[in-house]
Amino acid sequence: MGKGGMSQGEKEDGEEVNMAAWLMGVNTLKIQPLELPSLGPYDVLVRMKAVGVCGSDVHFLKTLRLADFVVKEPMVIGHECAGVIEKVGSEVKTLVPGDRVALEPGISCWQCDYCKGGRYNLCPESKGLGSPPVHGCLANQVVHPADLCFKLPDNVSLEEGAMCEPLSVGVHACRRANIGPETNVLIMGSGPIGLVTMLAARAFGAPRIVIVDVDDYRLSVAKKLGADNIVKVSTNLQDIAEEVEKIQKAMGTGIDVSFDCAGFNKTMSTALSATRAGGKVCLVGMGHREMTVPLTPAAAREVDVVGVFRYKNTWPLCLEFLRSGKIDVKPLITHRFGFSQKEVEEAFETSARGGTAIKVMFNL
Amino acid sequence: MGKGGMSQGEKEDGEEVNMAAWLMGVNTLKIQPLELPSLGPYDVLVRMKAVGVCGSDVHFLKTLRLADFVVKEPMVIGHECAGVIEKVGSEVKTLVPGDRVALEPGISCWQCDYCKGGRYNLCPESKGLGSPPVHGCLANQVVHPADLCFKLPDNVSLEEGAMCEPLSVGVHACRRANIGPETNVLIMGSGPIGLVTMLAARAFGAPRIVIVDVDDYRLSVAKKLGADNIVKVSTNLQDIAEEVEKIQKAMGTGIDVSFDCAGFNKTMSTALSATRAGGKVCLVGMGHREMTVPLTPAAAREVDVVGVFRYKNTWPLCLEFLRSGKIDVKPLITHRFGFSQKEVEEAFETSARGGTAIKVMFNL
Amino acid sequence: MGKGGMSQGEKEDGEEVNMAAWLMGVNTLKIQPLELPSLGPYDVLVRMKAVGVCGSDVHFLKTLRLADFVVKEPMVIGHECAGVIEKVGSEVKTLVPGDRVALEPGISCWQCDYCKGGRYNLCPESKGLGSPPVHGCLANQVVHPADLCFKLPDNVSLEEGAMCEPLSVGVHACRRANIGPETNVLIMGSGPIGLVTMLAARAFGAPRIVIVDVDDYRLSVAKKLGADNIVKVSTNLQDIAEEVEKIQKAMGTGIDVSFDCAGFNKTMSTALSATRAGGKVCLVGMGHREMTVPLTPAAAREVDVVGVFRYKNTWPLCLEFLRSGKIDVKPLITHRFGFSQKEVEEAFETSARGGTAIKVMFNL
Amino acid sequence: MGKGGMSQGEKEDGEEVNMAAWLMGVNTLKIQPLELPSLGPYDVLVRMKAVGVCGSDVHFLKTLRLADFVVKEPMVIGHECAGVIEKVGSEVKTLVPGDRVALEPGISCWQCDYCKGGRYNLCPESKGLGSPPVHGCLANQVVHPADLCFKLPDNVSLEEGAMCEPLSVGVHACRRANIGPETNVLIMGSGPIGLVTMLAARAFGAPRIVIVDVDDYRLSVAKKLGADNIVKVSTNLQDIAEEVEKIQKAMGTGIDVSFDCAGFNKTMSTALSATRAGGKVCLVGMGHREMTVPLTPAAAREVDVVGVFRYKNTWPLCLEFLRSGKIDVKPLITHRFGFSQKEVEEAFETSARGGTAIKVMFNL
Repeated sequence: MGKGGMSQGEKEDGEEVNMAAWLMGVNTLKIQPLELPSLGPYDVLVRMKAVGVCGSDVHFLKTLRLADFVVKEPMVIGHECAGVIEKVGSEVKTLVPGDRVALEPGISCWQCDYCKGGRYNLCPESKGLGSPPVHGCLANQVVHPADLCFKLPDNVSLEEGAMCEPLSVGVHACRRANIGPETNVLIMGSGPIGLVTMLAARAFGAPRIVIVDVDDYRLSVAKKLGADNIVKVSTNLQDIAEEVEKIQKAMGTGIDVSFDCAGFNKTMSTALSATRAGGKVCLVGMGHREMTVPLTPAAAREVDVVGVFRYKNTWPLCLEFLRSGKIDVKPLITHRFGFSQKEVEEAFETSARGGTAIKVMFNL
Repeated sequence: MGKGGMSQGEKEDGEEVNMAAWLMGVNTLKIQPLELPSLGPYDVLVRMKAVGVCGSDVHFLKTLRLADFVVKEPMVIGHECAGVIEKVGSEVKTLVPGDRVALEPGISCWQCDYCKGGRYNLCPESKGLGSPPVHGCLANQVVHPADLCFKLPDNVSLEEGAMCEPLSVGVHACRRANIGPETNVLIMGSGPIGLVTMLAARAFGAPRIVIVDVDDYRLSVAKKLGADNIVKVSTNLQDIAEEVEKIQKAMGTGIDVSFDCAGFNKTMSTALSATRAGGKVCLVGMGHREMTVPLTPAAAREVDVVGVFRYKNTWPLCLEFLRSGKIDVKPLITHRFGFSQKEVEEAFETSARGGTAIKVMFNL
Repeated sequence: MGKGGMSQGEKEDGEEVNMAAWLMGVNTLKIQPLELPSLGPYDVLVRMKAVGVCGSDVHFLKTLRLADFVVKEPMVIGHECAGVIEKVGSEVKTLVPGDRVALEPGISCWQCDYCKGGRYNLCPESKGLGSPPVHGCLANQVVHPADLCFKLPDNVSLEEGAMCEPLSVGVHACRRANIGPETNVLIMGSGPIGLVTMLAARAFGAPRIVIVDVDDYRLSVAKKLGADNIVKVSTNLQDIAEEVEKIQKAMGTGIDVSFDCAGFNKTMSTALSATRAGGKVCLVGMGHREMTVPLTPAAAREVDVVGVFRYKNTWPLCLEFLRSGKIDVKPLITHRFGFSQKEVEEAFETSARGGTAIKVMFNL
Repeated sequence: MGKGGMSQGEKEDGEEVNMAAWLMGVNTLKIQPLELPSLGPYDVLVRMKAVGVCGSDVHFLKTLRLADFVVKEPMVIGHECAGVIEKVGSEVKTLVPGDRVALEPGISCWQCDYCKGGRYNLCPESKGLGSPPVHGCLANQVVHPADLCFKLPDNVSLEEGAMCEPLSVGVHACRRANIGPETNVLIMGSGPIGLVTMLAARAFGAPRIVIVDVDDYRLSVAKKLGADNIVKVSTNLQDIAEEVEKIQKAMGTGIDVSFDCAGFNKTMSTALSATRAGGKVCLVGMGHREMTVPLTPAAAREVDVVGVFRYKNTWPLCLEFLRSGKIDVKPLITHRFGFSQKEVEEAFETSARGGTAIKVMFNL
């Protein structure tokens, strides 16, 4: 049972009741029992210990939708998590009870061309923890496939384990944009996704990283976490040309790859214009659906645009980055909450407010 | 001297005067002498025999500009050409007078990172025949680097040689989009560029090609030249969703790569929406500079956008395609003109008019 | 060995007995009952209609081993097959009884890094039909995962379906060597694997293919099936330098990729020496285990050596090649046999003898 | 031999005589005048300040040959160098007298397919400083193309500049083997090339590097320079299986890429056997010309073999690695000599002796 003295938590026969945070409607989260599915031969039962709040969780809470995903029925929220194995299915050979693990939330079909071709993140049948209509992980316990539970190295905490999920977004973006010691990187947006992308880019060897935002505080965090240079910009579309010049000067050399971690007309226009001929722009943030951007002049300089959807095969690399100290995600965790009705509400409000909150984490 | 009985053409000392078609101002082309540069040790002197008219030539004639290129002083026009070697520089070992050659128009610096890194088409110092301020090839004679003159196989005509330039656009696009026997291809736009892209895609092994246009005649040409299916669309933005469905049905299987050979909001939006998750959209045409398109949903399906600028290392492959018969460009040459003042004017008018004109060719 | 001394063909209760060709010992094949496993929710029951004999089957028959695979207990032989669906598991949605399908024989684990990373052919837990200790497909019926059964296009026969397996070897080799319209191909060895590699290389667009063998008849078959040129060589190691020159002359241009479909010191030495700087040698055949070859001079010209193990994601492409007529495998099927004890023995003898036999096929 | 019997150091007219170290015959080096070629418009005149001794220089001194390169006439030796610009050609815009530069020694043709295709290191017309018959750089002054002279960052010394050449070998090998934060690396051989490859692999992000040698001292150097683990092996071929096991244990996880920096039957056999399925072996060293190795089992696990020849586009990256401190080459420079007849002889003897000598450097 989660910390916080809830009265629920035990069935009549003394067996534990699994409590979970249900998204019941707009701005309504409620802790209620969730019956666990039976444990299949390749599954494990995991007691949740750390669950992070993602911007997409907040979006679901406020609007019941995100992109093409719509919450039509009450659903347990959450998809960034780590915990401890309690039980393993009959065919599980790689994990034993007591193992501390981070969970990769998406379960793919392994029968389609995407899965077989190495791009399982694009599987049309993929079911993701906390993506409607699949229940999430903000709960006492979760049943999950063993091959999606990754054992934590001894020096990696459960909270850090939960951070593998947002970090995976940055890692996948860096892989798609082919980041290495020869790619100077621009990052548009210094929110949580911009920051994990920066940390990942550094770990992939990017020699120079410039990060851009409209907010002084967020820029100061980026600087503290390792950005080589920061540039403050406005939200005014008219300023693009001037700002591009400022950004290029802040880089001091050609911008090989730009990550747009905001996804607005302005950030994308800036990224497309600032990147050197033959470079890449990776669109990570999803601010605007339809975009008005100077795509043609960018394409005519062979600046390619690559997209990202979730991640694939990232957990082992994230854990290695955390183990070796190449990436330190601890400074990103700014707020912590227990798993009571009140704290759950507070946690989501804190995350929604932004401000100094980067990552809000539950300790269950 | 060109055919057509021009009075000019001989200097006082009996030496031939090199006549060329000068772009003097908006809608003003004039045949006048052009003094040739001296023949360097690695250069060849080529007598022009076939010169094609490109949409970009017409654009320069009508507006004196194209993208960021501006015609500030009178300039000889033309960049699609083939001819016969007349003289070779002292260090030229690969060509001899009498050789029939196709000319690659762009001359790169070979000292910058782009040139040394295999992307010489992005060389910022590149000088292209007929790109301001560099004189073009619609002239009796041209001096050009020997390594940019490619000997024609015996069964490839000079006109076909001149077609290597537009065909190179299609070949380069196919390379950038990685076309092969596993990529089903959608082409938006059935103009000259759409058609050469279709021919190239077929030669790269594309199993199924669907081509889309607003014009019945152009679609009928595409069908005759080998499209597996054609789809007529409107210019109305409201019709996109419905048309995407129609196009996907016409393909009958996932669209792996879409080439937008028009470059308008509507064509690009259609391409981005119709392409399967994990596919690519290659932007070849340049209709709109700023584009309003659903970039985010495409990126979120990892549909990447790749751009093209000119071409690189394409002539040998184009000539092999022509030699082997894998590509037949002859049906694209719909109109022929001689090199007189009157015919030059007519030729450009014909090309500008479009209609049944695909490629307009000068025979000098 | 199959369980129990049941009479062939029918059980006591009138239910059909599934008969299969068991490899009982060196040179000993015996048709005996094979009890089928139960049909899982994602499986299908397939009635075998066409089964091909592979060189590896013959090798198992004669030595009970191949590379690191050893036959330790009686095992049903065969892995090249096609048939008709008789029953489908409860969760199978893509196939129905009556569908004609080709079977991909290898079943991977889908939990390891190789499977998740797009290289499922390297899965260490992979189980392949007819690879010890897994029973093969030379039997009346087989239970197989539905996602490894590929529906045949209407114009592709069951025998052609069975040919997808050997053809997949060629297709996978071509993918690994990145064959396309810019790669001139040398093939060492004109046996069945050399021939399917040639057919695949052509379908991938190879402009020029030269094939080399010691046997006049096999070379004549290659020529008939589309080789641009053939070169007869000796088995004498001293002749390499001279033969390399002959082979390069037969190509007439640089050899971009060489496939060694024999795998002997001499063929590999020839391939390494004949390939142009920056080209590739793909080792497909497995004649010698340890090789004595001029690897250093090849590496110093950046001639890379790529290996192949089975195939992955090849059936859909093979079926498309067969459907479209880009590849015609029918001429490779030289001998046909029924499924009786006597014919099974004859079929394997025929295949082992070589000579005019390319592919020996069972019609069940 | 240099033209004319000029007194050393000064011409009759007071102009400086350019002195150089001539390789006159086996084991015979002599300091003599070398007349400089005229300064072309794109050339610079560089006063040499630091010149390193390479194993290949020693090999030329002892045998007058290396691979297919043969010294047929007296030739100035040396190709690892840095110096100060003294004069620039009329068209040189990127450098001025006084600039400290590192020299890339190879001059390619920029007209062939290799040069235009981004693989200029494979240019068949390439001329390399100190590769017969082209004079090297162990001289007071050298004339070299400006685009092959790379300005040193302020915090990079001339000696470090000269180290860019050997470091480039490691960098090019890492690029060819695609080293990054996901590739655990094995290095066979802890000599100078093994060490620069190790430093480069670390800079490319390799998480774990194991280095193998027969010599305790060399292994101790590797350990001090950053190897995660070292393994001492014998020269006995019979020990391979046991040693492979020891090496794999020392790695503790799959070996993704092995660099063979020795190039002997044993080192290559070990590398091929130790590398995980789907990994790569990069052959850098050139001990044996013909190799007897288990190539087939490696190929059957899709372990690819990639070769390296020199390097391309490496100087800017090397200088960035040195500038940022990601690589420190200073500990490799173990011995220093001046540019007198006696010291030149001593320097080459020191390098040839090996022992504690890693890099022997001239300060001119």
